[in-house]
Amino acid sequence: MGAGSIGCYYGARLALSGQDVHFLMRSDLATVRSQGLQVKIREEVLHLTRVKAYAASAEIGPCDLVVIALKTTASAELPALVAPLLGPDTALLTLQNGLGADEFLAQHFGAERVLGGLAFIASNRVAPGVIECYQPGSLMLGEFGRPAGERALGIAKMFQAAGIKCNTTDNLDEARWRKLVWNVPFNGLAIAAGGIATDKILADPALRTLARELMEEVVAAAAKLGHVIPAKFIDHQFKITDPMGPYKPSSLIDYLEGRPVEVESIWGEPVRRAQAAGISVPRMAMLYALLGALGRKV
Amino acid sequence: MGAGSIGCYYGARLALSGQDVHFLMRSDLATVRSQGLQVKIREEVLHLTRVKAYAASAEIGPCDLVVIALKTTASAELPALVAPLLGPDTALLTLQNGLGADEFLAQHFGAERVLGGLAFIASNRVAPGVIECYQPGSLMLGEFGRPAGERALGIAKMFQAAGIKCNTTDNLDEARWRKLVWNVPFNGLAIAAGGIATDKILADPALRTLARELMEEVVAAAAKLGHVIPAKFIDHQFKITDPMGPYKPSSLIDYLEGRPVEVESIWGEPVRRAQAAGISVPRMAMLYALLGALGRKV
Repeated sequence: MGAGSIGCYYGARLALSGQDVHFLMRSDLATVRSQGLQVKIREEVLHLTRVKAYAASAEIGPCDLVVIALKTTASAELPALVAPLLGPDTALLTLQNGLGADEFLAQHFGAERVLGGLAFIASNRVAPGVIECYQPGSLMLGEFGRPAGERALGIAKMFQAAGIKCNTTDNLDEARWRKLVWNVPFNGLAIAAGGIATDKILADPALRTLARELMEEVVAAAAKLGHVIPAKFIDHQFKITDPMGPYKPSSLIDYLEGRPVEVESIWGEPVRRAQAAGISVPRMAMLYALLGALGRKV
Repeated sequence: MGAGSIGCYYGARLALSGQDVHFLMRSDLATVRSQGLQVKIREEVLHLTRVKAYAASAEIGPCDLVVIALKTTASAELPALVAPLLGPDTALLTLQNGLGADEFLAQHFGAERVLGGLAFIASNRVAPGVIECYQPGSLMLGEFGRPAGERALGIAKMFQAAGIKCNTTDNLDEARWRKLVWNVPFNGLAIAAGGIATDKILADPALRTLARELMEEVVAAAAKLGHVIPAKFIDHQFKITDPMGPYKPSSLIDYLEGRPVEVESIWGEPVRRAQAAGISVPRMAMLYALLGALGRKV
């Protein structure tokens, strides 16, 4: 569900591996139906010529697994989009960013159906049905509110069989907080500091310090919520980001291209959970307030 | 010194009241020499037809009083600009924003020469030599590092005789911190939240809260430095700003018009003084970091 780079990349890989994949998409539907899906991974090009693409869930009907790759800014549409896809044992796997997507699905469709995933991937939809993947990275899956069991392991195996590096986690919530350690500062400062890539953030001593302070707030909030993230994990974020060069976080691309930014899931919900747990996160809250205002200008 | 709205407004008023005023200016020099200075104050128009305008301080020579109305971003030029104007008893009055201008002059020319002033005025230079004053407000003068004495009172009287509401303060530093209670949040958020006027800041609950938190940090820093600003002063800032409508703080105008923003004097120096005094001002420091990056994009 969702014809962005994440949905198309994983969907194309799964279909090419022999899975019966149905794609739900809107604006790209006609192009994808006529031209298929093209995924460029460095020198390799994957081409899925016959795509089962649909404009409405009702045309698809009940599935074994629904992979949700919509932006969280479109989550209000999910209840109506997902309902026609549900059979008694349908699992829902949300690859959406930040916090709140798992709970949202659990609330609407029952916690037992819900898995969450974190896509550590650098990719971009460069045209309708055309995906460029710079770094395929890996996928991490977990069950919502429980350790990974047979179902999660089975889904992970399916991704692995499709050529996708895939791990499972026994603590989805902690994995989401860990990802926020990177997303909160870099996705946020890239926008708030004037539309700059990660290299510019890292090269500015004041912004670099601020990025670290934001990470420390995320780690402190996670700790208060029971997720112990070691301090060296913060150093590691700089170690992996320094060599990335002028990398544009996904939220910056959304912002620059005039699309809504995922402000609530990446900053709003983490700030609310931190504050509800009684921990002060002044910089995260300030970033949330600024991005809220900047997002409204999109 | 300086042909912005502040320098031209006070200079024209003083000249029209009979004072022997010499104006130092650059880009506007030719226009002002040929057309004079025009100050529009609501329905009233003041016209100073013969302006003693100069391109270099050496053409002016020693003065009784040098009124400095340059942006703090141009302060590095001050030592060279001021030197030719100095006689043995020349007083220097800086109307520059934020913190640091008094100390800078004291360091270069001796503390005993220095007075500082705060211009509570809403005005704009709309064309070379043409000033629009929306709200003449008042001027507050103080001696650097000492109570106001005869000299400050004499200068205040001169301004009053020129039709300018003028008070003195016995604590210039405290007066500067009080002005920062407004400038730090409103000048800063107007830029950092995407180029918005004060009405938009006040109408956004998250930004309004953030403005108050920034004010609380300024007040806490001032208190730590010995300046007790009562809590109701914060409420008062909202009371006076709410009716202002879509008011653009001076820093926002600088930013929108591509001029350097006075980042160091309004945010940098206050943050450094707060931190040196051992008080944490996370939001002010974050705003400083963001404005530093945004300012570099100008």
